[in-house]
Amino acid sequence: MENIFTDAFFMKKALQEAEFAFEKGEIPVGAVIVIDNKVIARTHNLTELLHDVTAHAEMQAITSAANFIGGKYLKDCTLYVTLEPCQMCAGALYWSQISKIVFGASDENRGFQKMGTQLHPKTQVISGVLEKECGDLMKAFFKNKR
Amino acid sequence: MENIFTDAFFMKKALQEAEFAFEKGEIPVGAVIVIDNKVIARTHNLTELLHDVTAHAEMQAITSAANFIGGKYLKDCTLYVTLEPCQMCAGALYWSQISKIVFGASDENRGFQKMGTQLHPKTQVISGVLEKECGDLMKAFFKNKR
Repeated sequence: MENIFTDAFFMKKALQEAEFAFEKGEIPVGAVIVIDNKVIARTHNLTELLHDVTAHAEMQAITSAANFIGGKYLKDCTLYVTLEPCQMCAGALYWSQISKIVFGASDENRGFQKMGTQLHPKTQVISGVLEKECGDLMKAFFKNKR
Repeated sequence: MENIFTDAFFMKKALQEAEFAFEKGEIPVGAVIVIDNKVIARTHNLTELLHDVTAHAEMQAITSAANFIGGKYLKDCTLYVTLEPCQMCAGALYWSQISKIVFGASDENRGFQKMGTQLHPKTQVISGVLEKECGDLMKAFFKNKR
């Protein structure tokens, strides 16, 4: 039997979260954290609703997953996020020692790769999973705003 | 009359917060955020208690100050923090567009300056305020741990 638990499978769940953000008028970024093919956190950007720059999807997902695990390290976890993490989120992921980060669309301006933010040496990064779908949602959001 | 509201005045309040963290067995970092010489947020590191790598003093202070202000930007605010912010906290401060960051002790290993984290171009940084007191508290903490 084919393994259904691909990176695209979980990125679709992150994309669903991004769509919730979109509906609320938030920049549409969604995230899930997975351990042993089980989703233990699902979040979306809430910076406008909460008036809080720290309320990025990834930050909430880290807090939520750590709460589920009962410890602050996310060593056996994978984060799926629709947009490349920023400096803040990558800095939080550094502290979490997360095993794997999978992101959809790149953020050429404020993504951690361009900004040179350091991840934990054990963290694996995969990019471009459902890149078009994740990027198209962002474009639709900013087109609406203009 | 002499102005009592110096950087050292507010750093002492951040140091008090760091002492609360110390008493709880947390890495002793404290922060306050000030607007018009008024303290609108006072926080200390709670990463152990909350099992949450995002619970640095600065992150909580940003959330708390934004909540007080009712908006996510901290444009007229100053953050006083006993230790140089890390990548995550500097990344959050970038988004907040905070006016001024004053820190006590430097973090040669994981501070944002060594890591190259980018702040908002309008953010002013002052370092070394009560540096010895802030650093001594950190040293006392790690000496206890050994």
